[in-house]
Amino acid sequence: MAERVEGELLKVVVLVLILVMLGAKTEAMSTTRGHKRSKDESSGSGEGDSMSFCLSWRLAVEANNVVAWPTVPPQCSRYVETYMINGQYERDLDLIVEEILGYLNQTLLPPDSMDAWILDVDDTCISNIYYYKTKNYGCDPYDPSAFRKWAMKGGCPAIPSVLRLFSILVDKGFKVFLLTGRDEESLGEVTKNNLHNQGFIGYERLILRNAAYRGKSAMKYKSDVRKQLEEEGYRIWGNVGDQWSDIKGDYLGNRTFKLPNPMYFVP
Amino acid sequence: MAERVEGELLKVVVLVLILVMLGAKTEAMSTTRGHKRSKDESSGSGEGDSMSFCLSWRLAVEANNVVAWPTVPPQCSRYVETYMINGQYERDLDLIVEEILGYLNQTLLPPDSMDAWILDVDDTCISNIYYYKTKNYGCDPYDPSAFRKWAMKGGCPAIPSVLRLFSILVDKGFKVFLLTGRDEESLGEVTKNNLHNQGFIGYERLILRNAAYRGKSAMKYKSDVRKQLEEEGYRIWGNVGDQWSDIKGDYLGNRTFKLPNPMYFVP
Repeated sequence: MAERVEGELLKVVVLVLILVMLGAKTEAMSTTRGHKRSKDESSGSGEGDSMSFCLSWRLAVEANNVVAWPTVPPQCSRYVETYMINGQYERDLDLIVEEILGYLNQTLLPPDSMDAWILDVDDTCISNIYYYKTKNYGCDPYDPSAFRKWAMKGGCPAIPSVLRLFSILVDKGFKVFLLTGRDEESLGEVTKNNLHNQGFIGYERLILRNAAYRGKSAMKYKSDVRKQLEEEGYRIWGNVGDQWSDIKGDYLGNRTFKLPNPMYFVP
Repeated sequence: MAERVEGELLKVVVLVLILVMLGAKTEAMSTTRGHKRSKDESSGSGEGDSMSFCLSWRLAVEANNVVAWPTVPPQCSRYVETYMINGQYERDLDLIVEEILGYLNQTLLPPDSMDAWILDVDDTCISNIYYYKTKNYGCDPYDPSAFRKWAMKGGCPAIPSVLRLFSILVDKGFKVFLLTGRDEESLGEVTKNNLHNQGFIGYERLILRNAAYRGKSAMKYKSDVRKQLEEEGYRIWGNVGDQWSDIKGDYLGNRTFKLPNPMYFVP
């Protein structure tokens, strides 16, 4: 009788073990599949091909090799989204700001208060990432009226690492000029308020695009403004923007810094 | 008796199942660990922290934000090696060359044979990757005498995508100028032979650094050469190099292209 019970008990144990084992095997297989996908992303096949292309494309954008691109390539939609929201974008910004702080530590300002620093506004001081989320992270075509509506809300959040840089620049005695291609007439007041509500307080001047520069390239407009500042006697120590048109052209300043932006291109 | 045998048999089956199950569980755990490591690489903890930093560092190098770096950061040794030899470097080069070919298709050359294109030599036309492999992919300090010994062998292999570009440029009627910071006196002949044995045939002029420019920055030297070419009447359509000092300064040409190089920095 005892042996019979033992036999039945063993059968139940075997059944349970088989079920547990099947579960473990399934887990192992699904994990292996997950791992394989992640390997493919870096070795270049299927999904990996697209990932490799998007890595190359973004690098070429940031090094100013690929220019005048109207939209993000459609196959890079997920890649750009992941880059922007999963932390690497912030880490890239942090490293550049650390580099700028290292440069600042080597500079000794003359005591005449004519030391200037230039910061772009959109996606340099304040972020449009929530707007671009609705535009498929730059895969959808540029939509000026929708962007104007978004900007008119005055709710662009500060980019934390640049706000930190801004505060240090002000503390160190730099005259910080915020130089933006936004239209002065329609967006001047709301931009000023947006910057203020995000903590950009203590800058020297907010310079917006006036009627004379409507339709002109950002590079031409910004070069002219920098020329004007140098004619006023300012020394431009640094110039930071997310677009190459912010940091190309004339009167660039002693050093320029290109912040990442894989979502749009401004000529 | 039959029940007794059945009982013993079941015990053996249970033992085997337990062993098999333990094996499956171990596999699942090790695969999970493997997967976790790969996830960490993109989310930033442990090994992932270093990977994230190296991604940011390389982007900042290619966008000219981080300058005058003496060596690759030690924690990026493996990362740079993987980037250089696992295919992404070639894919990055391919995409830039495709961009250049797109630009060439939009250009219509005047019939006066004064259309110039400038290519740098080291790590633009021909590769030093085998040399840098012995220098820990740029983590070891710059070693001018070891590099000279390597260059004297004349065995640098062509970079395939740039050789392809070179041939197309020559076919299209561009006067291609190969402009290098290598010393004319000691490396002129061997460099000419190295380029020839790698298929760089049909260029207009190989320009090396002469005694007057020894110790001067590459940016100054190359700007002066380009000025000279423009004074000779050449129109510079494009200018390609792996260093920002190749494509910064004066008389840059209509478009510049920065090829990737995370192994060393030339001022």
